Amino acid sequence: MKVLITGAGGYIGSVLQAVLTQRPEVAGQRVDAIALVDRVLPGAAGPRRVAIEGDLTDSAVLERIADFRPDTTFHLAGVPGGASEADYLVGRRTNLDATLALFEQLAQQRRDADRAPVVVYASTIAVYGTRLPPVVKQETPLQPPLTYGAHKRVCEILLADFSRRNELDGRTLRLPGIVARRSAGPGLTSAFMSDVLHALADGVPFEAPVSEEATAWWMSARRCAENLVHAAGMDLTGADPGRAWPMPVLRLSMRDIVNTCAEAFGPDRKSLVAYRPIESVEAVFGRYPVLDDAPSRALGLLDDGTPLALVLRALGREA
Amino acid sequence: MKVLITGAGGYIGSVLQAVLTQRPEVAGQRVDAIALVDRVLPGAAGPRRVAIEGDLTDSAVLERIADFRPDTTFHLAGVPGGASEADYLVGRRTNLDATLALFEQLAQQRRDADRAPVVVYASTIAVYGTRLPPVVKQETPLQPPLTYGAHKRVCEILLADFSRRNELDGRTLRLPGIVARRSAGPGLTSAFMSDVLHALADGVPFEAPVSEEATAWWMSARRCAENLVHAAGMDLTGADPGRAWPMPVLRLSMRDIVNTCAEAFGPDRKSLVAYRPIESVEAVFGRYPVLDDAPSRALGLLDDGTPLALVLRALGREA
Repeated sequence: MKVLITGAGGYIGSVLQAVLTQRPEVAGQRVDAIALVDRVLPGAAGPRRVAIEGDLTDSAVLERIADFRPDTTFHLAGVPGGASEADYLVGRRTNLDATLALFEQLAQQRRDADRAPVVVYASTIAVYGTRLPPVVKQETPLQPPLTYGAHKRVCEILLADFSRRNELDGRTLRLPGIVARRSAGPGLTSAFMSDVLHALADGVPFEAPVSEEATAWWMSARRCAENLVHAAGMDLTGADPGRAWPMPVLRLSMRDIVNTCAEAFGPDRKSLVAYRPIESVEAVFGRYPVLDDAPSRALGLLDDGTPLALVLRALGREA
Repeated sequence: MKVLITGAGGYIGSVLQAVLTQRPEVAGQRVDAIALVDRVLPGAAGPRRVAIEGDLTDSAVLERIADFRPDTTFHLAGVPGGASEADYLVGRRTNLDATLALFEQLAQQRRDADRAPVVVYASTIAVYGTRLPPVVKQETPLQPPLTYGAHKRVCEILLADFSRRNELDGRTLRLPGIVARRSAGPGLTSAFMSDVLHALADGVPFEAPVSEEATAWWMSARRCAENLVHAAGMDLTGADPGRAWPMPVLRLSMRDIVNTCAEAFGPDRKSLVAYRPIESVEAVFGRYPVLDDAPSRALGLLDDGTPLALVLRALGREA
């Protein structure tokens, strides 16, 4: 089993690498080699590792992928929402053009292979939009509110079509905000969701850009990576031909998160938090409705279990 | 008002040209010039006509479109479903790449213009899929069963995103099978819907590849072209940000059609029809459910009114 990871140098890519190092198995098969693709790949050397440094928009990178011939691809590379909105072409080249080029390149393999290459595609809950019903279901109409989400949705459709043609075996997972990355930097509006966990673990003051009641969908990077690996082996007999599912999530308010941090790190943590809601942030990250993720759970995908497990796992402190 | 028509040499493009010749008005404004784009444009010369012969996938064609600077574009050019399914790249180049390139080229105009260029995009009921509920509504999930429909759906999403960015003012209409084209030739499975009308008007025998009960969505080319023109001027204040609507349709069985032809051309017509259902044709063109086209009608889009009006208009015999 040969595995390819695009965006391997990113936050989720790094955790996925770690998961596959600890347990080198995908879809019940031993992982013999992992090719890592990213613009920068620090520390990517290692046994059974192939580092492909470069941009996915570069045809030379696609050629090296073709030479590697992955059985399973985890496609994580992408330009984030803020950057895609600010510069249409930058977003289009990676989130649309390079993704389609990757799908086509992998589909070429199909010709002389026993089965279609598996593609686990990291999409986003940004495909849903901000005008949502009280319960988001599998059939809820998607209204991506940004070009980022529109291009992700487009690639979900393209992957489903390659799967229908039996040229790829696609599995799209829609990722919520994943915690807890370190210093995501400006431009990632959801960064506060990671920042609050690090701040309260470290015992430093934190200013929340949302209210105490702000409700969002939460998942640790570790659980996210485990779900991605699981997705590669899911039995899709009779499944929705759209082949796109949200990750199961814990729907928690900021109050829930702060209380959980107090439970984990000490009751003094509560007094470290000041709430200074910013309306635009609250609108996007404060009003997540209920997610009916039963179809995702039926496929064996998991959330973090409890708020405490989420917080500890997000910070790499799990037992 | 400068108008561009892609696929102008095709069946619907020709009828649209005729409609705009009879009444040169779009969105309440006088049409000063019409640019026609197609690979072959017989008889395209005329006052206020600009013929751009060439393929939309050719950058030289896009440059001539940029020079023309249309206020309103009717984007009809496309590779049909059968051809797109048989040769993925042929379909992708026109239905996906060239369509996106056209959208981007027109969006460039926005920079030094008072308002976003209007794009009326001819999509297809092939975005819906074949596993439909008894009533198809605006929020019914789309499951394009062919690459043709997948690429059309993708471009609907891209056009909605350009519209949200206020770079284009997009209006997608999903076209049903349009009648009555002459000798569509092999590859167009829905050709029988046109053929039956010509055969019974001409008084020649006709073999139907579907059953008497086969129910489909019907619209004349004339009404289709009128709806396209109407769409350019629709007031979309408060409308669905997806900006895609089905054309209103008459849902008729083959029996309805044959009876209507008998009414129009003589009762002997009924005996000219033999039913030899082909399961694959019946599956796609024989089981259309009810279409809840209330949102389309609310925008002023129209069906043909009555089966008799449909038949006469489809054959160019309207009063």
